[in-house]
Amino acid sequence: MASNGVDEQIKLVEGPAGYVLEGVPHLSDYIHDLPTYPNPLQSNPAYSVVRQYFVDEDDTVQEKIVVHKDSPRGTHFRRAGPRQKVYFKPADVRACIVTCGGLCPGLNTVIREIVCGLHFMYGVTEVIGVDCGFRGFYSKNTAALTPKTVSDIHKRGGTILGTSRGGHDTSKIVDNIQDREINQVYIIGGDGTQKGASAIYKEIRRRGLKVAVAGIPKTIDNDIPVIDKSFGFDSAVEEAQRAINAAHVEATSVENGIGLVKLMGRYSGFIAMYATLASRDVDCCLIPESPFYLEGKGGLYEFIAKRLRENGHMVIVVAEGAGQDLVAESVEQQDASGNKLLKDVGLWMSLKIKEHFAKQSVLDITLKYIDPTYMIRAIPANASDNVYSTLLAQSAVHGAMAGYTGFVSGLVNGRHTYIPFNRITEKQNKVVITDRMWARMLSSTNQPSFMNPPKGTTVVSN
Amino acid sequence: MASNGVDEQIKLVEGPAGYVLEGVPHLSDYIHDLPTYPNPLQSNPAYSVVRQYFVDEDDTVQEKIVVHKDSPRGTHFRRAGPRQKVYFKPADVRACIVTCGGLCPGLNTVIREIVCGLHFMYGVTEVIGVDCGFRGFYSKNTAALTPKTVSDIHKRGGTILGTSRGGHDTSKIVDNIQDREINQVYIIGGDGTQKGASAIYKEIRRRGLKVAVAGIPKTIDNDIPVIDKSFGFDSAVEEAQRAINAAHVEATSVENGIGLVKLMGRYSGFIAMYATLASRDVDCCLIPESPFYLEGKGGLYEFIAKRLRENGHMVIVVAEGAGQDLVAESVEQQDASGNKLLKDVGLWMSLKIKEHFAKQSVLDITLKYIDPTYMIRAIPANASDNVYSTLLAQSAVHGAMAGYTGFVSGLVNGRHTYIPFNRITEKQNKVVITDRMWARMLSSTNQPSFMNPPKGTTVVSN
Amino acid sequence: MASNGVDEQIKLVEGPAGYVLEGVPHLSDYIHDLPTYPNPLQSNPAYSVVRQYFVDEDDTVQEKIVVHKDSPRGTHFRRAGPRQKVYFKPADVRACIVTCGGLCPGLNTVIREIVCGLHFMYGVTEVIGVDCGFRGFYSKNTAALTPKTVSDIHKRGGTILGTSRGGHDTSKIVDNIQDREINQVYIIGGDGTQKGASAIYKEIRRRGLKVAVAGIPKTIDNDIPVIDKSFGFDSAVEEAQRAINAAHVEATSVENGIGLVKLMGRYSGFIAMYATLASRDVDCCLIPESPFYLEGKGGLYEFIAKRLRENGHMVIVVAEGAGQDLVAESVEQQDASGNKLLKDVGLWMSLKIKEHFAKQSVLDITLKYIDPTYMIRAIPANASDNVYSTLLAQSAVHGAMAGYTGFVSGLVNGRHTYIPFNRITEKQNKVVITDRMWARMLSSTNQPSFMNPPKGTTVVSN
Amino acid sequence: MASNGVDEQIKLVEGPAGYVLEGVPHLSDYIHDLPTYPNPLQSNPAYSVVRQYFVDEDDTVQEKIVVHKDSPRGTHFRRAGPRQKVYFKPADVRACIVTCGGLCPGLNTVIREIVCGLHFMYGVTEVIGVDCGFRGFYSKNTAALTPKTVSDIHKRGGTILGTSRGGHDTSKIVDNIQDREINQVYIIGGDGTQKGASAIYKEIRRRGLKVAVAGIPKTIDNDIPVIDKSFGFDSAVEEAQRAINAAHVEATSVENGIGLVKLMGRYSGFIAMYATLASRDVDCCLIPESPFYLEGKGGLYEFIAKRLRENGHMVIVVAEGAGQDLVAESVEQQDASGNKLLKDVGLWMSLKIKEHFAKQSVLDITLKYIDPTYMIRAIPANASDNVYSTLLAQSAVHGAMAGYTGFVSGLVNGRHTYIPFNRITEKQNKVVITDRMWARMLSSTNQPSFMNPPKGTTVVSN
Repeated sequence: MASNGVDEQIKLVEGPAGYVLEGVPHLSDYIHDLPTYPNPLQSNPAYSVVRQYFVDEDDTVQEKIVVHKDSPRGTHFRRAGPRQKVYFKPADVRACIVTCGGLCPGLNTVIREIVCGLHFMYGVTEVIGVDCGFRGFYSKNTAALTPKTVSDIHKRGGTILGTSRGGHDTSKIVDNIQDREINQVYIIGGDGTQKGASAIYKEIRRRGLKVAVAGIPKTIDNDIPVIDKSFGFDSAVEEAQRAINAAHVEATSVENGIGLVKLMGRYSGFIAMYATLASRDVDCCLIPESPFYLEGKGGLYEFIAKRLRENGHMVIVVAEGAGQDLVAESVEQQDASGNKLLKDVGLWMSLKIKEHFAKQSVLDITLKYIDPTYMIRAIPANASDNVYSTLLAQSAVHGAMAGYTGFVSGLVNGRHTYIPFNRITEKQNKVVITDRMWARMLSSTNQPSFMNPPKGTTVVSN
Repeated sequence: MASNGVDEQIKLVEGPAGYVLEGVPHLSDYIHDLPTYPNPLQSNPAYSVVRQYFVDEDDTVQEKIVVHKDSPRGTHFRRAGPRQKVYFKPADVRACIVTCGGLCPGLNTVIREIVCGLHFMYGVTEVIGVDCGFRGFYSKNTAALTPKTVSDIHKRGGTILGTSRGGHDTSKIVDNIQDREINQVYIIGGDGTQKGASAIYKEIRRRGLKVAVAGIPKTIDNDIPVIDKSFGFDSAVEEAQRAINAAHVEATSVENGIGLVKLMGRYSGFIAMYATLASRDVDCCLIPESPFYLEGKGGLYEFIAKRLRENGHMVIVVAEGAGQDLVAESVEQQDASGNKLLKDVGLWMSLKIKEHFAKQSVLDITLKYIDPTYMIRAIPANASDNVYSTLLAQSAVHGAMAGYTGFVSGLVNGRHTYIPFNRITEKQNKVVITDRMWARMLSSTNQPSFMNPPKGTTVVSN
Repeated sequence: MASNGVDEQIKLVEGPAGYVLEGVPHLSDYIHDLPTYPNPLQSNPAYSVVRQYFVDEDDTVQEKIVVHKDSPRGTHFRRAGPRQKVYFKPADVRACIVTCGGLCPGLNTVIREIVCGLHFMYGVTEVIGVDCGFRGFYSKNTAALTPKTVSDIHKRGGTILGTSRGGHDTSKIVDNIQDREINQVYIIGGDGTQKGASAIYKEIRRRGLKVAVAGIPKTIDNDIPVIDKSFGFDSAVEEAQRAINAAHVEATSVENGIGLVKLMGRYSGFIAMYATLASRDVDCCLIPESPFYLEGKGGLYEFIAKRLRENGHMVIVVAEGAGQDLVAESVEQQDASGNKLLKDVGLWMSLKIKEHFAKQSVLDITLKYIDPTYMIRAIPANASDNVYSTLLAQSAVHGAMAGYTGFVSGLVNGRHTYIPFNRITEKQNKVVITDRMWARMLSSTNQPSFMNPPKGTTVVSN
Repeated sequence: MASNGVDEQIKLVEGPAGYVLEGVPHLSDYIHDLPTYPNPLQSNPAYSVVRQYFVDEDDTVQEKIVVHKDSPRGTHFRRAGPRQKVYFKPADVRACIVTCGGLCPGLNTVIREIVCGLHFMYGVTEVIGVDCGFRGFYSKNTAALTPKTVSDIHKRGGTILGTSRGGHDTSKIVDNIQDREINQVYIIGGDGTQKGASAIYKEIRRRGLKVAVAGIPKTIDNDIPVIDKSFGFDSAVEEAQRAINAAHVEATSVENGIGLVKLMGRYSGFIAMYATLASRDVDCCLIPESPFYLEGKGGLYEFIAKRLRENGHMVIVVAEGAGQDLVAESVEQQDASGNKLLKDVGLWMSLKIKEHFAKQSVLDITLKYIDPTYMIRAIPANASDNVYSTLLAQSAVHGAMAGYTGFVSGLVNGRHTYIPFNRITEKQNKVVITDRMWARMLSSTNQPSFMNPPKGTTVVSN
């Protein structure tokens, strides 16, 4: 095994024809002579007919699957799932779950299924919930989680554990993990959170603790790389349709009506793009990845005027992270308290567009601005995300029980895998605007590409 | 008949025991010797089994029905419905429909049922739609409306006719009505619109035209007096539940979480009050009719702090017209463009509350603000509003065919009636905060009454 | 007071101009020298601004409100609401709640609001839930109900208490009420249940017990007379739209497609009629009140053939109680177990129609049958029914606290009232097919009236 | 190229390390010297920024992606997408679309996007819709389809083209294709339909016509092999939640309540399995792939009795194709017309269970049966299925324009591919009950495995 001595996160295995396995750390990497136990699933009646139950240690999932006849085989990840042997005696396990960052449909399902997976598949009865994010490890009480307490939570939005953003003290967290004798840590959160999880894993490893750290990546924006999509994304795109429908109705019910909808997506425009593709009522979709400008030839104002003259109404979808340079430039020289609100690109654009057309006094527009963000985030997961979240949680449980650590549970090409932290935190998943999906989007809206700004125009380029 | 010579809108009839009928004008009041025709419904097969079909001319609906044994009988309105005789030959009718003001669930149903009612009940085939509100009479083309073109519109939100706000020229509208030889005018809109309708009716009467003017009162806020409730109100309250649920989920998923929801209601807090009563997740409901203040003992900040300490989270619902004095005082001395946004009480309150608790640095709150206004307005009517809108439209059609004019179609104590314009425009329906419904609301939220502001405190009092 | 000595349920008061009050019994009617107490609402801060809070003892609500100038004033009911004096000391109250019969949206809201109303308005803390209907009084354990245990139940369908149908032993129930020292009994159920409630009230009165018996009428079919509509009815009609939409889609997606939807309504076709009026996609609506026949001129088969030839598709809505004579005649001579299923008019009609057109081999029809009954019954109440159920429950609580007994809480002409049991159990509310609402329905579907069956044809006439 | 001379559907290409490409036929396979044209997308402004737009001819998608370090590379499919060259001049294209078989959410989206894809991406203006399935080619008129006529159809369930089941005459279809000068045929349907499509393709090839035949596999049951999942499946699972929720509410609101829900799945239990996994309220899920029996030890009756005694209620989900042997055995000896109904496993089971427990007279059960089939099939696609259906349609259009024929458009491991007909019609996709997904399902319900029937018991084994 070609383990990398420098970085404790990367475990590469190479094979013929360019095969590379990016493995994940294992407790036995730094603790020797760990005992193993037969997987309790072997005697679980539900699994009695399952011949292909245990995952072969050598099963790996190929990352690049659009290949030529003689392409190198490339990167692979470890397949998720239960192993023949586990590294924890169920009675010894003391697991904890923490949720961090913004709300996302499916959070409660993940919590529920970690608890139920540990309980029903492995007979683990001690699971505790950390209150209100990372900080809760040392500043809050914990609560016991049982199948009964989590039984119906997947039908509710939000997170029953509470969540928070912002800084935390890795060392105090690991102290607390030691003090409470926790030996499995499940961390649900976005890339910032998973960076934190990685630091916790490293500190645990430094201290030589037998504590498995498993992440479940959470991002409603779908901005985590490697994985196919993040849980909750489908539910969010679905719910966004309501706002787009409303914008369409408002726009078509007046003369020169504009419906403007802001959707989530600070760095990545996936929700905006998919919601636009699903709806077909959108005339213009603006995302952080694709620069745009307002004034002059080829600009947004010109396009609005054109579309209104043609159709009498239009719908614009803007991701929250789109146009941040334009916003910053326009707002920063002012300091009144109301201007805080203008950092919201949706409010800013609605003012700008109204002011522009009021000044022009050519088109008498009516603009309605809709910000459905919190109404989207707070819904319970739809059926598809419920199943998906369930499998992510179960994979994480299987991984931790099998002694893996420092990994996240993620779907790659439709297969559940274990991915090392660094691969999902080192960059962000973004809409590739030179790729076909964006072209499809452009083709569906017929919006300008904003590629040739007049000289001197500020163009957004995140 | 005790017709009032001075005001052409008021036709009072008196009877024993304090009985008063507030009738509505009739074409025959100012045009003599109008011919009548048998009602075509008499030969309609659908009505062949209906023995009680035609409304007796003497049927009236009592306004005040909570009575004592010897109370005077009080005001009555004319019962709506088809009459034995009609004052238009179906082949001669040329009707038009116009929608004005903001969107409201059910607008398309009303349009559909005026068209279908005229067509299927009376055999009227000429119905035209006026584009984009009152101004459309003279500035726009019209479109023919047939049962086929309106067949599915009740499943869509908004208005297929388009709508607009603002001024119009009564004289040009009546000119246009004459020029196009329209003889029935159906006007769907709020109190401003019905004032306009009243002016149109008066001008038509002044010119002695045989043109019936019928209004269908529309107000999502339920702020029109006399009638039981306005169409679309139920649908709006229903849809508002989504926003309140989302606010509740957001608030309960963080420490000291506040969910703030702004609902419609410029002058009347009915939507806020009913949505609060229906949801039960609301901790504080602020409406235009009930003064409140922020600072000091008994103020909103104090209540927020108290509720957060008790429960850890709270939901506030604020009607758009609440606290306008506070907003005005706080905003008017500033002039930066961002401050336009602060005229929105929801944005203003969210800033104020955040600033207050940031300054206090006692409670570290997280506030999420939701404005579902356009997502609510734009939904299609629910089943109950669809049936209600249908009956309002049919009543208006029966009334106009029977030669009544200068009236609106309205539900009084569950009965369809014809009400003179002045009765619904002379004042607004408001939540009576000395009445029991508001007490129920207060009892459900346990919010303060804001009745005893400290000295020097600004209290809102619209 | 002209109390009626014979029947302990009827308390008539007469006044001038034909005024009659149908009052409800009071504990003081048969127990003398009962002490009274000031209403605790007098010191409730939520009610401090409410000037018009207490209901005047003389307030009555007029039943017939479409009147002529000199009509007699007719029947009135006692207005519901809190009284100045109450007949129970809050600390002495021991209330119980029971739900009987089929599910209906809003049951949990009524339960919740009786508990919360007693608790927050009157300070009553002892409320118990009877398990699974009347039988539960003597065959089951009870559970304590507190504001906390009922806090979120209004968001769920069904009844948390459980329900049952069928016989019960009045005497054992009253024994149990005595044994458990219960002094307020809240009974939620349909007309059968309210007959049972009436018997319980009479037995209690016979024994001279100070126990108030209050009913809240429940019927998803809206078949209870006197009251404006039953709680849950709006929600049911709303949800029925889904089934009708589905039937419409199925029918329009094939050649000669028929969508058949069975809706609730054993004796009364209100849900079918209102769902049809709200949807506008229905071609034929069959209800228990309106006879119909299948074969021959003017029959259903002929109409189906005609509509399919005209439009290529059709939707039929049938209330569960429609055509029971036809079903009985067709099914009873057979005894195979499968025929049990044919007592379901929907299954029976779908077989009959298929067989008829298969035999004819003229029209090659495709029929899809949808029975959404349990999907409709099981939904939570919509916002409008939530508010309505809340007020019904609060009225019942006010009535019982004020010492009234042997009454139901009901809405009459939009006003909350107390109605004696006999008035709502003596007959059923039915669609009057000689009235205008049914004509509107016929006019919207253009279906035949089925009034002139060929000789020898069996016509349903329930 | 190792083209297979015998079967005109299979085009194998082999490569190193066990690489196999299962290609699809191409018009140039049997027509020589076909001219090619530059793809019009090259000058489409929406694609101006897309560098990676055209699919490399050598791009293939790997089928088996869970591999070992040295596994053979295995089967690959051609990647879908636009090619540099097309084999049709847009002005010459005359395309037709036909939908066959049962309804499925997304049908209208696929239709819409074939029309819009041809129009906006390739400038093709002649697209016609075949009415009511295969038979419509020769028995019905066609209708022109334009972007305008299909603009809003994705918001509606069903298929605007109409559909039908059953036999058709391949030769007459191809005659008609020739007569109408159609040169692209898009066929949307299940495995039977795709077998028909394959026959049409073969006949076209036999006649040497330049007509591309492209299939879009449609099956709400997800029973088509090779592809990841079928469009509409997610929407169906989502909608099934409503029925399961209702069954759960009904079951929990009575003593010994059983909610029985029948879901789609004649040969494959995917909808039942996923709906069960998503809901978590199901106690037993029965599918065609997993045998079960009613009587005796380990049988369903025993499990029902056990679960009712433990919990007091239960929910059973049964796929329509489950237990067919049991049904056949029980029903076939009877012949009364009502017994036709018993072929429905849901009705059959509800009778059987009721009869069993009535006979036992131990448990007094209340069973409510829900069949939501048509309410599920008829919904519009959800957002996720809308995007998916869009991409399937666009892929089919790209393939046909590029001269491919005899293929279906399908998603393999998350990548869009072209798959030869035979691969998706030669067998059915089924739930593998020796695989982990089924074990997860068993684990979530804790139902018996039905693996050890008592001697003489009939066990279903489809």
